Amino acid sequence: MMETLIVEKRKAKLKNPILVTGLPGIGLVGQVVCKYLITKMGGKKLADVYSPHFPHQVLMTKKGAIRPIKNMIFTIKAGKRDIILLVGDVQAITSEGQYEVAGKLLDYAYSLGARDVVSIGGYSTGKLSDKRKVFGVVTHKHLVTDLKKVGVVFGEAKGAIVGAAGLLPALAKIKGMKGICIMGETHGSYVDAVSARNVINVLEKLLGFTVDLSDLEKQAKEGEKIIKKIEEEVQKQTIAPYQSEKKDVSYIR
Amino acid sequence: MMETLIVEKRKAKLKNPILVTGLPGIGLVGQVVCKYLITKMGGKKLADVYSPHFPHQVLMTKKGAIRPIKNMIFTIKAGKRDIILLVGDVQAITSEGQYEVAGKLLDYAYSLGARDVVSIGGYSTGKLSDKRKVFGVVTHKHLVTDLKKVGVVFGEAKGAIVGAAGLLPALAKIKGMKGICIMGETHGSYVDAVSARNVINVLEKLLGFTVDLSDLEKQAKEGEKIIKKIEEEVQKQTIAPYQSEKKDVSYIR
Amino acid sequence: MMETLIVEKRKAKLKNPILVTGLPGIGLVGQVVCKYLITKMGGKKLADVYSPHFPHQVLMTKKGAIRPIKNMIFTIKAGKRDIILLVGDVQAITSEGQYEVAGKLLDYAYSLGARDVVSIGGYSTGKLSDKRKVFGVVTHKHLVTDLKKVGVVFGEAKGAIVGAAGLLPALAKIKGMKGICIMGETHGSYVDAVSARNVINVLEKLLGFTVDLSDLEKQAKEGEKIIKKIEEEVQKQTIAPYQSEKKDVSYIR
Amino acid sequence: MMETLIVEKRKAKLKNPILVTGLPGIGLVGQVVCKYLITKMGGKKLADVYSPHFPHQVLMTKKGAIRPIKNMIFTIKAGKRDIILLVGDVQAITSEGQYEVAGKLLDYAYSLGARDVVSIGGYSTGKLSDKRKVFGVVTHKHLVTDLKKVGVVFGEAKGAIVGAAGLLPALAKIKGMKGICIMGETHGSYVDAVSARNVINVLEKLLGFTVDLSDLEKQAKEGEKIIKKIEEEVQKQTIAPYQSEKKDVSYIR
Repeated sequence: MMETLIVEKRKAKLKNPILVTGLPGIGLVGQVVCKYLITKMGGKKLADVYSPHFPHQVLMTKKGAIRPIKNMIFTIKAGKRDIILLVGDVQAITSEGQYEVAGKLLDYAYSLGARDVVSIGGYSTGKLSDKRKVFGVVTHKHLVTDLKKVGVVFGEAKGAIVGAAGLLPALAKIKGMKGICIMGETHGSYVDAVSARNVINVLEKLLGFTVDLSDLEKQAKEGEKIIKKIEEEVQKQTIAPYQSEKKDVSYIR
Repeated sequence: MMETLIVEKRKAKLKNPILVTGLPGIGLVGQVVCKYLITKMGGKKLADVYSPHFPHQVLMTKKGAIRPIKNMIFTIKAGKRDIILLVGDVQAITSEGQYEVAGKLLDYAYSLGARDVVSIGGYSTGKLSDKRKVFGVVTHKHLVTDLKKVGVVFGEAKGAIVGAAGLLPALAKIKGMKGICIMGETHGSYVDAVSARNVINVLEKLLGFTVDLSDLEKQAKEGEKIIKKIEEEVQKQTIAPYQSEKKDVSYIR
Repeated sequence: MMETLIVEKRKAKLKNPILVTGLPGIGLVGQVVCKYLITKMGGKKLADVYSPHFPHQVLMTKKGAIRPIKNMIFTIKAGKRDIILLVGDVQAITSEGQYEVAGKLLDYAYSLGARDVVSIGGYSTGKLSDKRKVFGVVTHKHLVTDLKKVGVVFGEAKGAIVGAAGLLPALAKIKGMKGICIMGETHGSYVDAVSARNVINVLEKLLGFTVDLSDLEKQAKEGEKIIKKIEEEVQKQTIAPYQSEKKDVSYIR
Repeated sequence: MMETLIVEKRKAKLKNPILVTGLPGIGLVGQVVCKYLITKMGGKKLADVYSPHFPHQVLMTKKGAIRPIKNMIFTIKAGKRDIILLVGDVQAITSEGQYEVAGKLLDYAYSLGARDVVSIGGYSTGKLSDKRKVFGVVTHKHLVTDLKKVGVVFGEAKGAIVGAAGLLPALAKIKGMKGICIMGETHGSYVDAVSARNVINVLEKLLGFTVDLSDLEKQAKEGEKIIKKIEEEVQKQTIAPYQSEKKDVSYIR
């Protein structure tokens, strides 16, 4: 096995499909989004993706099963269009591997009829904003207008995107497809269900579907409590030395 | 030489063969098991395996021979089924290499008629249990029942398996084969003949053969003495500082 | 995508073309030279170059566009000959990648009719010379005479050239082309527009074109002021400890 | 350029040729041997060897020439047999690269009619023996007898050989050739012309040729003087602290 292998479980006939990807990345925003959609919208497994560019490890389950590390492709019916969803355990570990896997995945999505790619990622700010924005970058100018209409913020995200969330839409253009990268604003150190919820809100409007968000909202609320506690602890430990110094000084006076 | 090369020494006609693998790994459990079976059950060399993914070294023997680092495939007759045994000097050194070598080995075993793969590894616990278990993970549920019958413990081993002992059975499933990974419980820092003996006991029942274990038992007894001595020394050196502190304290009292 | 991909934007019919390359390197001399020529001489984009050997990153622009890291090929009309210009974000990140990308680029230039390659690089001296020379190395002896006539200095640059500026002309010879590497003398720690200007002076004479250098001269003057200030600061900080020591000593006396 | 490239300069018709290799390695023994034979026996360049597995550097000469890092193949007439000599700037930098280059070189030598491979290396002992032996390892038992007759010592060299000096003869066997690795005993930290001379003495008897060794003897004598001086300095610096301590102690007494 020297190349990425896509093992199809069934034949799919898809209606104007769009590829939406959520591999593990910053804040696990993409992963949370895509796994939630698969669970709540009846995602059906279409294919397993194995690659020599993934770590040479296999996973053991509690029940005694063993399986290679992999990515998985699901399909869901979302109204006007079918969605091809990409999720997985890992991203490729080398730069060459990232390009090879991304190329194979795009070719496969293209062969299924997809001409649009939306990758979901997190945009790390290192802080815990109350109102977290959803940022976007696109391969074709006219997409900016469409995305602004559904609440995506342009012009604030800048720099480089490392990994599959950037490569997939960017390489899509070379293959004659259109690409969008949607990034949920997030702290970066925590799994961020709030950011994931915001991204799904955008996707609902963009792709014209609705999904029951109550479970994600619950998860987001619980997550926020824990994250805020941890952040307060972190703040205390960072500020403490300065405060105690001040006290010492005041004693002397 | 850019790909793994399997050099066949003879043509083999095998009876319902099963691939059993024991490359160097944790506690050398797999290696000890497979080399012992080859020696005691008249293993016949079938093929040498060379790979650009092995280290770029060659080995010198006392008699002045030189040979590349390699893996080797033997066959043994074990009653109802023939066993294809994989042993070797090393595993591939990169992740891509591990996938490439595993893929080539599985294709070769498949071409010989093998549809079942049993990899032997060690499961490191960091301690020296008196009664060491044999753990299992499988690619197909129904195998759990078969393995429990012959003493394999399920549900205790968890996490990831790194390297060939995991990849071979896990990738086997993709190629239409069934895969089992049998892991002998072991400390992890020592060559463990006791654990190897336990694994052979399982294999005997699973595959319906018997092998004279007296030499391995002897080796296990001697090994255990040495390992226990080393462990005692390690314990002393770890505990010593605390004991001497206590003494000091008692002096003061 | 497992190999470097050259995506042609248009068909070009070129007059005795010569490949001139300026990828990011020492002092960014090559990059400044080639980008300046593209801007001032009406460079027309011919092709984009993508490669799995580039970092697995994509770039975001202020306007919300996303694109893969890439190299670009432009053409400019320069009098008697057409120039094919190579510029880009990066060089390949591994040694194997450097060879693969260089090979693909040379084959492409050859297919366009180019039989001559001039790579532009910087030659780092670690100091800020007032009169910076332009050094050369060539694949064919007779080129030395041509280059000396236009002010290129031979026999002073020595050792190895790392990266594309060396590989492109050196590998060119293997493919039946002639190669020149022109290196602007430079400090090495700063973007050097003075050195770039000197190199363009050489190219003008060598290839028989003229270009308005006023903007580059301006950039060079401003750059020099800043670089000299920084260098003075660096000098002060390096010399300061010794001077203060001397003062202390004189106090004691 | 993704694979090793052998660029033939001329067509060679060789008489029962044998491949002798001397790439850079321990004590540069192999390199000194092969370059000396090429110079003194009228070696004629047959081919240049380029590889993406070599460093991505090119070399500049004093006269202003530029060339890729490479290996080179020469032929010399040595009486009964023709010798194909391999020398070069470097060895491949990765393990995969070493296998690929070695494979290509062996296939090329085979295509020229070579069925025997003698690699020359150094065997590092970390000391400066007066009488330096020549060690050997072989792929076929019967070669031991032939080599013992010409003074090669067997059974003392042990362990692993890293790099081309081991891979070339060891992989030769897989390709239906016979392989010998001849290792000149050497300190390991110095270029060793004495060891090279000893190896040539062996080659003369083994292959039935004679070569004027006076220049190498001269080089060896001069080299020995320098090496011995350096070694004495190293010894002094290592022993000095202990001696000065002793003096201090005697003062106190």
